[in-house]
Amino acid sequence: MSIHNAKPTSNREDAALDPSDIVISNITIATMQPGQGAYGLVPDGAVALSDGRIEWVGPASELPVEYRATAREDGGGRLMTPALIDCHTHLVFGGDRAREFEMRLEGASYEEVARAGGGIVSTVRATRAADEQELTAGALSRLDALIAEGVTTVEVKSGYGLDRETELRMLRVARKLAAARPVRIRTTFLGAHAVPPEYAGHADAYIDEVCIPTLDAAAAEGLADAVDGFCEGIAFSPAQIARVFDRAKALGLPLKLHAEQLSNLGGTALAASRGALSADHLEYLDADGVGAMAKSGTVAVLLPGAFYTLRETQLPPVGLLREAGVPIAVATDCNPGSSPLTSLLLTLNMACTLFRLTPEEALAGATRIAAQALGLTDCGVIAAGKRADLAVWDVAHPAELSYRIGFNPLHRRIFGDQA
Amino acid sequence: MSIHNAKPTSNREDAALDPSDIVISNITIATMQPGQGAYGLVPDGAVALSDGRIEWVGPASELPVEYRATAREDGGGRLMTPALIDCHTHLVFGGDRAREFEMRLEGASYEEVARAGGGIVSTVRATRAADEQELTAGALSRLDALIAEGVTTVEVKSGYGLDRETELRMLRVARKLAAARPVRIRTTFLGAHAVPPEYAGHADAYIDEVCIPTLDAAAAEGLADAVDGFCEGIAFSPAQIARVFDRAKALGLPLKLHAEQLSNLGGTALAASRGALSADHLEYLDADGVGAMAKSGTVAVLLPGAFYTLRETQLPPVGLLREAGVPIAVATDCNPGSSPLTSLLLTLNMACTLFRLTPEEALAGATRIAAQALGLTDCGVIAAGKRADLAVWDVAHPAELSYRIGFNPLHRRIFGDQA
Ligand SMILES: [Zn+2]
Ligand SMILES: [Zn+2]
Repeated sequence: MSIHNAKPTSNREDAALDPSDIVISNITIATMQPGQGAYGLVPDGAVALSDGRIEWVGPASELPVEYRATAREDGGGRLMTPALIDCHTHLVFGGDRAREFEMRLEGASYEEVARAGGGIVSTVRATRAADEQELTAGALSRLDALIAEGVTTVEVKSGYGLDRETELRMLRVARKLAAARPVRIRTTFLGAHAVPPEYAGHADAYIDEVCIPTLDAAAAEGLADAVDGFCEGIAFSPAQIARVFDRAKALGLPLKLHAEQLSNLGGTALAASRGALSADHLEYLDADGVGAMAKSGTVAVLLPGAFYTLRETQLPPVGLLREAGVPIAVATDCNPGSSPLTSLLLTLNMACTLFRLTPEEALAGATRIAAQALGLTDCGVIAAGKRADLAVWDVAHPAELSYRIGFNPLHRRIFGDQA
Repeated sequence: MSIHNAKPTSNREDAALDPSDIVISNITIATMQPGQGAYGLVPDGAVALSDGRIEWVGPASELPVEYRATAREDGGGRLMTPALIDCHTHLVFGGDRAREFEMRLEGASYEEVARAGGGIVSTVRATRAADEQELTAGALSRLDALIAEGVTTVEVKSGYGLDRETELRMLRVARKLAAARPVRIRTTFLGAHAVPPEYAGHADAYIDEVCIPTLDAAAAEGLADAVDGFCEGIAFSPAQIARVFDRAKALGLPLKLHAEQLSNLGGTALAASRGALSADHLEYLDADGVGAMAKSGTVAVLLPGAFYTLRETQLPPVGLLREAGVPIAVATDCNPGSSPLTSLLLTLNMACTLFRLTPEEALAGATRIAAQALGLTDCGVIAAGKRADLAVWDVAHPAELSYRIGFNPLHRRIFGDQA
């Protein structure tokens, strides 16, 4: 008999090295730079890193002579890509919806689930009841799963508090995750996620009395990097979202929107007209909405985990988005209700299998375009001057990252934080 | 800047302990014993293990006095289940189909893929060209992913050789995996997987000249624990499969069958009439086939990874199987073409999400019923006398194992091999 302990993810990493200067060669590099052929691939590549930045990347044979004396590492013929970026998550929440998942599969009606305390309200209740420490512990377990697959940047939304105190607590917890793990966190205020029970039937009052004042407070405390909303029949109308966007604009915060997930309300056109960074979900987006996004340069963030979990059959208009040149990102949408998913690699496979993205589009969607969806210009590609946020994989070709299902070939993650 | 090495799976396990006698308490035990309530759950349980066997299991308060002096371990309030069993895989193969996956998504026709060397023929070619060492290395990388999720028993099929030498090499490689890792391997001869190119249009001749003689050789060498076939328009007819089954019966080997995956040819009724252990896939199974399985006690092995990858829309008749009392197992079907899947936990989620199994049915399908599909009576449940093949999880309730997507909460795996 033998007993084998699984090491928790956070222990799966060696003590961090901090080489001030290093050259890695004997490596295939998918730079993901646009206009450089498929994946921006450099077959026998080398990369020179210094103080958390990429100083040089290119064919090893062209490595400038000034790097000949730099400490050299053998990449073992592996594949290097930009580190992955999860640009849409609800990583911080309280409670557990596993039993609700089970009840539904056992045939319980929505009413029975609700009576048993299920649905988003149960997450709101549990999140309000949880202190910072409890919220942090839950979020870290999910964050560790992402990090173990080569993720270095994670967007985290509020939206399960729906009152001033809890929304701010969620954002504080999200911010502090970056101190607990070698990862970069981008926070998004999502006060307009759902109408809380105490405001049922009074969505307008909730927006004016809770959401906007809480947004002001979050901005004053420097807790929000962006502002998001959920524009849907079961959440908020375009007119209500517009009021939140107005305040965000006044505060100088960039915009995002959950739009066209379950029906077409025109939220995407609203978001595009305000120059939003991204519109997310988009299963029910029509040609007009696509046109608006193309004009504004708004990123389409596709979330196949929610599509899969909800057994949605309406596909987002990938062909139209592609033709119109709308940049496409992919993300986990990690949340306890419609996407309890903590694998960005699996998300790449779902984006290909379910949405018919190519593996190159999927990988760009979790690197270069994901950075764009967060308004970040210093990461997402392997190029001189960018952060040294890198992933090294035990695969020969980048298509394998999308092709395999439930497999993690990460060999090494490099986090380009500056000293 | 910090650099983090991901440890390969096989190093994620501590050096194996081999306690001859141990009691684990402070643990919730999902015994998976039938007729004992949901999951056969024992909330505040204890288990006594001795020399690789379970000696006693029950409420901690009822632990017999004879175990009071036994070395005690604190389970930390975690959940214990039987170790997982993957009862249908094609883990041993050569080559890589990632580029084919990519070509299809880039819009290549089947003809173009075939001309570029794609399809099952490419795997047959690569498997024939691979030596034992290459086949073993590939299989181990996939096996390690399964083991890391608490799997202790894996079925492995031949079927990519389709000639005598390569079929036997695949089975030898499969057998030897059990010496390389703490895992139990069950081998299945699948010579009737596809008609090889050199016999195109001559399936009958392939069965008589290659498949059956190779089965004889495999049996003589003790390489096959069971015999399988693929009954489908693109593979073999019921009459051809029947000839293979006849020989298997004469050799005293149990039967399995890939049946009713793409159409209804009646393979399941054939398998049931011969008392097969299992019929696998079954998307197109009808009520008559279900009735035949119920009568023979044949296990239905559902393979949601292939359903997902092929974007199949015809669901297996889960309701009919349930009503008829046909035992339902679930498995990865890990293979390079239609299910490049190496996560049995994700398979549980897919079985629930896509096929609407309950989490309890899914877990039974990867433990108790999976054992039944392999003809094993010494594992799959936590009961006195069974092997100490156990998994300990960092979750509170067994439904979480099916609910989460792309998350591995394994804390510890116990492999009950006897000293
Ligand atoms: Zn979301
Ligand atoms: Zn199969």
